[in-house]
Amino acid sequence: MNRAGGPLPPDSTVADVGERALLDHLRSRVPHGPGVVVGIGDDAAVLETTALTLLTTDCLVEGVHFRRDWSPPALIGRKALTVNLSDIAAMAGTPRFATVSLALPRDVTIGFVDGLYDGLLERGAEAGVHVVGGNIAATTGPIVVDVTLLGDGGGRVLRRAGAQPGDLVVVTGTLGSAAAGLRFLGTGARLDADSEVAAMGSWTGATEALLRCLRAQLDPAPPLAFARALGEHDLVHAAMDLSDGLSGDLAALCEASEVSAWLDPAALPLEPCAAVLEKEGGEDAFSLALHGGEDYQLLMAVPPDAIDGLRDVAVVWEVTVTPIGAFAAGPPGVSLRFGDALRRLRPASHDHFRR
Amino acid sequence: MNRAGGPLPPDSTVADVGERALLDHLRSRVPHGPGVVVGIGDDAAVLETTALTLLTTDCLVEGVHFRRDWSPPALIGRKALTVNLSDIAAMAGTPRFATVSLALPRDVTIGFVDGLYDGLLERGAEAGVHVVGGNIAATTGPIVVDVTLLGDGGGRVLRRAGAQPGDLVVVTGTLGSAAAGLRFLGTGARLDADSEVAAMGSWTGATEALLRCLRAQLDPAPPLAFARALGEHDLVHAAMDLSDGLSGDLAALCEASEVSAWLDPAALPLEPCAAVLEKEGGEDAFSLALHGGEDYQLLMAVPPDAIDGLRDVAVVWEVTVTPIGAFAAGPPGVSLRFGDALRRLRPASHDHFRR
Repeated sequence: MNRAGGPLPPDSTVADVGERALLDHLRSRVPHGPGVVVGIGDDAAVLETTALTLLTTDCLVEGVHFRRDWSPPALIGRKALTVNLSDIAAMAGTPRFATVSLALPRDVTIGFVDGLYDGLLERGAEAGVHVVGGNIAATTGPIVVDVTLLGDGGGRVLRRAGAQPGDLVVVTGTLGSAAAGLRFLGTGARLDADSEVAAMGSWTGATEALLRCLRAQLDPAPPLAFARALGEHDLVHAAMDLSDGLSGDLAALCEASEVSAWLDPAALPLEPCAAVLEKEGGEDAFSLALHGGEDYQLLMAVPPDAIDGLRDVAVVWEVTVTPIGAFAAGPPGVSLRFGDALRRLRPASHDHFRR
Repeated sequence: MNRAGGPLPPDSTVADVGERALLDHLRSRVPHGPGVVVGIGDDAAVLETTALTLLTTDCLVEGVHFRRDWSPPALIGRKALTVNLSDIAAMAGTPRFATVSLALPRDVTIGFVDGLYDGLLERGAEAGVHVVGGNIAATTGPIVVDVTLLGDGGGRVLRRAGAQPGDLVVVTGTLGSAAAGLRFLGTGARLDADSEVAAMGSWTGATEALLRCLRAQLDPAPPLAFARALGEHDLVHAAMDLSDGLSGDLAALCEASEVSAWLDPAALPLEPCAAVLEKEGGEDAFSLALHGGEDYQLLMAVPPDAIDGLRDVAVVWEVTVTPIGAFAAGPPGVSLRFGDALRRLRPASHDHFRR
């Protein structure tokens, strides 16, 4: 066997190679990082940590969160880390160490696992995160990629609780881009392993617009540095990342903060490409923005006198911020505001169990 | 929906109830713990940590590591935490915080998930571990229970590297009990949710003996306190937990320490019940001890002049320790010693990909 961790044939399966040789191989690929006293290869990793540590876990399940024919393995690896980076950023933390737990069917190839690690390690290098442990298990079902991310809680920790009546509801970026990207994947559009457009599907517009939507879905870029910077300012009362969709996530933030919220439908930063989907009989841009999910943008409660300061920070980190409504006293819940009338918005976010 | 986290009907499925209500329900069951600044329910947990943190992850896959018809859900929950406790203990650490990531088929009942959490939370309370985060994902395949455990690295950290030529190979407890328990499960023997014998299967001997083997498989009890105490003494050069089986695990320890090792076949603390299996045409007790796996006992490299001190610590924590061989200079590898002759032992530990 390949005990020294050298290259393994990319076309061989994990069953051909066996658990131990695969673990040795992956270990040989993972660089050592600062603060890692003991990395992969012992019973547990030993890490230098600060007084406050952030911990989060999120997993991607094949057939539910990704499809092997819709995403190159490198982008699956990138996204598995990114969804966790988004959580640490939403607490204004600094991500540091990750463990990776893979459940793999026996016929998965070494090439696939290597591709997944290519993306995971590349994304880790971009974000200053080191892989310090992992686990590989056989499964008779779909691939499961489970990442746990540990971060330093530096300055202020941003919580979901803390929104005050009168605070503005503010989001970064555009909403509905990831959901639009998913629809374009359904028409045959694809990205390659370098996150460039490899197929256009039904799209006939500018490549850049399609690229934005496909990346939002397959290779999301949460505003990590901007969110971390918010820990050094006193501009935001509460925050969370938009993973399930605005309608459900804002309802969750309202519940944690024990306030209500209303949204101005005209203010939502809609994904422009969604208009094309609407013309073709798909969902409208407004629905995708409210319920689409997986945008991994930041949702914030911002006191009105802090919005200019927030815009200044956003400019530094090249992030757009858009006020889209306000929090108010009252039982937790979200409404849409049409002139003076409030119409209750039912959360209709992603629920993978019910799909 | 059940947003307040009250009881949910145990016969309803996760698809009936939905992701958010299930998360709210589980959150309401998890007690707050010391050192937990922010627990379940935000983007990430915020935890008070020491300068050295231990981190490990291990998962159980249905059909590979457990069967729903062979194990009550409470014991699946207990074991999912225990296998991680064993890893932190093998580094002489103190376990503190856990995250739990579940991949669940849509037809899993609330009763099953609650049972799993019963066991997980009970085991956590026994070990001083608090659940601080989690994730629930839908899957089209088997249940996956992925636990990540964070611990404090207090005194000396026990590593796999460090075994010296001349050190004794020492193990705790008996070997092969978990593998014997698996065979008894195959004949219809069962434990109930309280880890008591519910069915004897083909076993006709004393219930206590069967109970020991079934618990070793379904509800293992690694020597956690003993292992942690080793961090306060200078008795052990290297250690790891026995999860894959002695032959493979000792080979891994040899590789990390760059030494060889030999075992005295007559010295192995064999599982007595295995003799019954052998009579019935099953594997012999010796093979189960060498290759069986999942014993979650501790494997140590102990300098000869420290063995009496180690026995004193073992007495305090009610653990048996048995010298079973010695480390020697030479290329990594394990041999069996018959008189003056050494016969190379090929690692034949668990490899779930190859089964």
